[in-house]
Amino acid sequence: MATVDDIGVAATFNIVTAIAFLLAFAFLRLQPINDRVYFPKWYLRGMRESPSSAGVAVSKYVNLNMRSYLKFLSWMPAALKMPEDELIDHAGLDSVVYLRIYRTGLKIFVPITILAFAVLVPVNWTNETLESMKVVHSGIDKLSISNIPNGSKRFMTHLVMAYVFTFWTCYVLMKEYENVATMRLRFLASEKRRPDQFTVLVRNIPPDPDESVSELVEHFFLVNHPDHYLRHQVVYNANKLADLVEKKKKMRNWLDYYQLKSERKSKRPTTKTGFLGCFGSEVDAIDYYKSEIEKIGKEEAEERKKVVKDPKSIMPAAFVSFRSRWGAAVCAQTQQTSNPTLWLTEWAPEPRDVYWNNLSIPFVSLTVRRLIIAVAFFFLNFFYVIPIAFVQTLANLEGIEKALPFLKPLIETPSVKSFIQGFLPGIALKIFLIVLPSILLLMSQFEGLISQSSLERRSASKYYIFLFFNVFLGSIITGSALEQLNTFLHQSANDIPRIIGVSIPMKATFFITYVMVDGWTGVAGEILRLKALIMFHLKNSFLVKTEKDREEAMDPGSICFYWSEPRIQLYFLLGLVYACVTPLLLPFILVFFALAYVVYRHQIINVYNQRYESGAQFWPSVHLRIIVALIVSQLLLLGLLSTKDFEESTPALIVLPILTFWFHRYCKNRYEPAFVRNPLQEAMRKDTLERAREPNFDLKAYLADAYLHPVFKSDLDGVDKFYVADDPGAEEVIVATKRQSRRTTPVQSKHDGSSSDRLLLPESVQER
Amino acid sequence: MATVDDIGVAATFNIVTAIAFLLAFAFLRLQPINDRVYFPKWYLRGMRESPSSAGVAVSKYVNLNMRSYLKFLSWMPAALKMPEDELIDHAGLDSVVYLRIYRTGLKIFVPITILAFAVLVPVNWTNETLESMKVVHSGIDKLSISNIPNGSKRFMTHLVMAYVFTFWTCYVLMKEYENVATMRLRFLASEKRRPDQFTVLVRNIPPDPDESVSELVEHFFLVNHPDHYLRHQVVYNANKLADLVEKKKKMRNWLDYYQLKSERKSKRPTTKTGFLGCFGSEVDAIDYYKSEIEKIGKEEAEERKKVVKDPKSIMPAAFVSFRSRWGAAVCAQTQQTSNPTLWLTEWAPEPRDVYWNNLSIPFVSLTVRRLIIAVAFFFLNFFYVIPIAFVQTLANLEGIEKALPFLKPLIETPSVKSFIQGFLPGIALKIFLIVLPSILLLMSQFEGLISQSSLERRSASKYYIFLFFNVFLGSIITGSALEQLNTFLHQSANDIPRIIGVSIPMKATFFITYVMVDGWTGVAGEILRLKALIMFHLKNSFLVKTEKDREEAMDPGSICFYWSEPRIQLYFLLGLVYACVTPLLLPFILVFFALAYVVYRHQIINVYNQRYESGAQFWPSVHLRIIVALIVSQLLLLGLLSTKDFEESTPALIVLPILTFWFHRYCKNRYEPAFVRNPLQEAMRKDTLERAREPNFDLKAYLADAYLHPVFKSDLDGVDKFYVADDPGAEEVIVATKRQSRRTTPVQSKHDGSSSDRLLLPESVQER
Repeated sequence: MATVDDIGVAATFNIVTAIAFLLAFAFLRLQPINDRVYFPKWYLRGMRESPSSAGVAVSKYVNLNMRSYLKFLSWMPAALKMPEDELIDHAGLDSVVYLRIYRTGLKIFVPITILAFAVLVPVNWTNETLESMKVVHSGIDKLSISNIPNGSKRFMTHLVMAYVFTFWTCYVLMKEYENVATMRLRFLASEKRRPDQFTVLVRNIPPDPDESVSELVEHFFLVNHPDHYLRHQVVYNANKLADLVEKKKKMRNWLDYYQLKSERKSKRPTTKTGFLGCFGSEVDAIDYYKSEIEKIGKEEAEERKKVVKDPKSIMPAAFVSFRSRWGAAVCAQTQQTSNPTLWLTEWAPEPRDVYWNNLSIPFVSLTVRRLIIAVAFFFLNFFYVIPIAFVQTLANLEGIEKALPFLKPLIETPSVKSFIQGFLPGIALKIFLIVLPSILLLMSQFEGLISQSSLERRSASKYYIFLFFNVFLGSIITGSALEQLNTFLHQSANDIPRIIGVSIPMKATFFITYVMVDGWTGVAGEILRLKALIMFHLKNSFLVKTEKDREEAMDPGSICFYWSEPRIQLYFLLGLVYACVTPLLLPFILVFFALAYVVYRHQIINVYNQRYESGAQFWPSVHLRIIVALIVSQLLLLGLLSTKDFEESTPALIVLPILTFWFHRYCKNRYEPAFVRNPLQEAMRKDTLERAREPNFDLKAYLADAYLHPVFKSDLDGVDKFYVADDPGAEEVIVATKRQSRRTTPVQSKHDGSSSDRLLLPESVQER
Repeated sequence: MATVDDIGVAATFNIVTAIAFLLAFAFLRLQPINDRVYFPKWYLRGMRESPSSAGVAVSKYVNLNMRSYLKFLSWMPAALKMPEDELIDHAGLDSVVYLRIYRTGLKIFVPITILAFAVLVPVNWTNETLESMKVVHSGIDKLSISNIPNGSKRFMTHLVMAYVFTFWTCYVLMKEYENVATMRLRFLASEKRRPDQFTVLVRNIPPDPDESVSELVEHFFLVNHPDHYLRHQVVYNANKLADLVEKKKKMRNWLDYYQLKSERKSKRPTTKTGFLGCFGSEVDAIDYYKSEIEKIGKEEAEERKKVVKDPKSIMPAAFVSFRSRWGAAVCAQTQQTSNPTLWLTEWAPEPRDVYWNNLSIPFVSLTVRRLIIAVAFFFLNFFYVIPIAFVQTLANLEGIEKALPFLKPLIETPSVKSFIQGFLPGIALKIFLIVLPSILLLMSQFEGLISQSSLERRSASKYYIFLFFNVFLGSIITGSALEQLNTFLHQSANDIPRIIGVSIPMKATFFITYVMVDGWTGVAGEILRLKALIMFHLKNSFLVKTEKDREEAMDPGSICFYWSEPRIQLYFLLGLVYACVTPLLLPFILVFFALAYVVYRHQIINVYNQRYESGAQFWPSVHLRIIVALIVSQLLLLGLLSTKDFEESTPALIVLPILTFWFHRYCKNRYEPAFVRNPLQEAMRKDTLERAREPNFDLKAYLADAYLHPVFKSDLDGVDKFYVADDPGAEEVIVATKRQSRRTTPVQSKHDGSSSDRLLLPESVQER
């Protein structure tokens, strides 16, 4: 069992690392050369530009203004300064509500921490149980519930505190739900005209022998929504075409690379035609890629024709637009035909939020896919426990010494020992968890969801379940499995809360370390953007020719909801579970929430560029998961107290989960519809206003190509990511559009040779 | 443990009783005097009338046609003859689909029974386990799974059969769901114009300081549904008024009674003013009731004025009608405002289905009420076990002998012993269960549901849960509690399937008896309508003066869904659980389903008069409960086999509940919307047709008073149950309307003295 000293060492180590990261960040961000790494959001919004080549040459790369180094922490207050409304304009509602998760954490845990330290810590401390029992224990255990003798009336305090904590958490949750719902409604109401407000996605259009899909859709909606139907857009199965375009784009990148290389070295570069350019015969790189691009270009043109003409590539799905928001709201919320599996309507996601590949999956297949993924996820979740348990037992000092006896002298050094004990279990777990979210995202894609945002939400749920079982329960049970697994296997389902409850106080030190490694250092690492920094400078050296290329080399990234939200939830879970048991854990969690809030607010203001806007649709699941954490904490406290000869607690504590569940039901009924359905009143209000303001607005033209598959869209306005320059003459016009503020992923580079050697440098380095 | 002989005695007894009931019915129904007891439906439909006083006097009372007695079972084929479409016209879709529950039972269990007897019975029978173990056993056990030695490979048969039974049941369920959904849709499509097709119930209208509820509703819908809104009807809180009307009606009944008495005895009858007419001072009855009626009449008139004028008695709810079905379908399925707890819209129930008392309950109160009822139901469900357990242990022979030793000689007589063992446990349970459904209905009323049909559905769910825990599990566990309770208390949650599984074969005889008593004799008793018969003749002797009075004295009754459906479900549960374990139970269940099908078909054709028509909205819950029974049967078989040293079974069997659950999800997605939502296409189709056929139909007038509270409605057309004759002059006109075919509950009697002594008698006795 780790002692307070171990924790001290771990804490020192993590604090030093975190501070080093923060210092590095403070230094690097002031360098003009890194400006696009640390302030890409402003470039994308067009509010910051690579200045023209005025001023001293050196100051283009390095910040020589010494005074700016003195206030190296100035980004922190700066990050907190921007008011919420401005932030919504700047970064969208999703980001702002995402920050509210951290704020909710602070709101819940600041009072809980104060109360726990004022009440529970003295109650726990003033006992002599552990000393009298002569158990090996650390200072931390003296502060925890373990220090109270069995059957003591002092447990009443914990009981009362469990009630207080529950009510406070529920109160904060309700207030937050209300706030977020209001924000969402205000956001939706204040929004400008957007195609998705008028559009509904129709799926599972039944086949008709006499009519094409397009005719069928038109006739159906003309009959059933006669006063509201405006136009529709059928969905093409352009997955293969999109692959070709993507492939062509990669080839073009390579071509650019080799062209730049040949210009610099004035020698024709060569490449190999085989796998990864490492095998096969050697050829002239530029010629090779040019011919390849031409080949793919032809293939693409053919495929493009085929997709448009072949009726088989038209999917039984369509985006149907209406004359008014009211008409769309009605169509999205109603059932069209008596067969509920045909003509399924739902709100169209934002055009950039659509996940095109899944639009064509039929209904029966969806059910089967869901079953398959459920089973697969069960197995993934279940068998993943094994490697984690293995690594964690290795991370045990005795385990290492046995496995690798030659390391014994090194490990036995006190400082190394503390380091390993404090650091290793956390890092081992961490590595396991890095690959996982992507797998879960793939699984969700297979399930057939049709928008990026819903994909991310679904993956987040899976990831949370995974973290709950494998990190939380897995660490508690398998960690102590060496002592308890045997008895545990022979126990039964209703003893589980008891067994976990008993292990919980013993695991406090492990989780404190985990919070420091994953929370503190992780968050500090996030702000440093080491990966983006390196990638940017690599690209900058090898690929960038034009200003546009440079813009593409920026990787602003985004909040990966599917990956980061479940991890925040783990801190909620830990905080709530340990609030009554080992209050010492709470300050660590508080530090995490505060640091993460500041860091992510900074990142959202300066770095991230959200790929879509769902209008905070994720809040109901955030709320649900905190409720789950609360109920788990109540059940585990119940289990723990039932082993402490304080069995009066059971009836008193069993009320809590019931009340909490009921509270959840209440909130769900009261607030969730604001995130799911679109009220007619709002739609009607906006329609009326708009009709009064712009009576002659041509909605049909406005909606004309909003929901065209991106590969086709590029033909029309060239604004999209799959832009392929087929007609070089048209390029000038296209470049002139204000593309920067709209696009979300790197645009296909264009050979605007004239500016290829203009390595533009910043004129001044501004704070935001 | 009961032997085959015990069962034989019980079976004989029950068969004799059932046949006696059936014979009594066959005899009684042929007597003209009982015609209104056994054929009320035809009277209500106006297709059978008390013939005028022609013919021999005796034949008015007794059927003298001896030949009709010979074919005393002729009602059975007659009941089966009417084709389904005609039956829907005759009795409504609810009744027809209710019959399909029995047919589903037959469809599921006929093949299962054949298969079980062809495969499982020989496999079980050809073992010597029970003999070799020298356990006390009966012939029934030899046919059951208990007769197979532990670890035998023969359990493979049971495993395979479990799969076959599951797939067959799911197949039948899916087909039935599909059929019922189609029937519902066809029914809704073929229906004539009905007010509820155009009407939506709006609840939780927010208070407005400037406008009355009525104005507010009008403005809101004129703004938000401008093209579709037609009119609305506010809801009055007329509960007190309805009470007064009801009270007045009772007084009038007493007045009638005493007037008739005085006419016959030519002596003024007296009554006492106190409680139940037994206490207080003696007064002249006719005068007393006359003055009372006058008093209440005044009170009622005042209350009536107050309700209409006082804004406080206008509830924040309204029935809003639309110009088209499409408009109503849209409004019912969409959310109106951004606050999901205001302006709640849902399809209006049929006018006669509305549960008026609950229309005014606010949203928050609803959530709280639901919590209260959930807790109350939990306790009811939990503590009800105690008396049942007590009675069942009493019903044990040794128990009775100990408690009442003087009965010992009587009980020890072999025939009496068999009788008690076969009959008593069933009847004890039965008495307990009779009072319960009414309590559950009251609980559901408190929950705030707004239609009779949803009340009944909710009560049915509660009753099923109750039956499952208390009758099914209660009988299995407490019945053997004397042996097992002790060990059971010390076991844990995941051992429960095992413990119940093990007890199941032992309880086969008990359930066979239960099926016979509750199923066979109960159903046979249902057709006899003993209570209705007695009540009718009592009323006929004491109250009936006019033809109309006689009509009121008829009590056609109706299918009490909340009471009868969960009991059918118990047979599904027993059948599925015992299919693999003790196939001998299956024929008993088959007989129940067949008998019940014929009997209820007869009753629906000739007797019952449904109080409302919900369009088979109950089928999703019927489906769900059969699925639950299936999953329970799979889990219990799993538990049972895991004790038989055949542990290979666990992985093979655990797949079944997962697949079954998935199947349920699939069916829910595929078919349930047909029972919940109203497709726009259908609505539009009917609208278009109707507009073409009757372009000038005055919908506004048609809907004018459809959703007026019944106490007010009586003022307008006098057709309703709360008709109060304020203007005697108007009566002649009213009587002339074809009321018989429309009204559903007894009409307030009118003193049409002229026909009071016309005791009309049937002219002939027809078979339907």
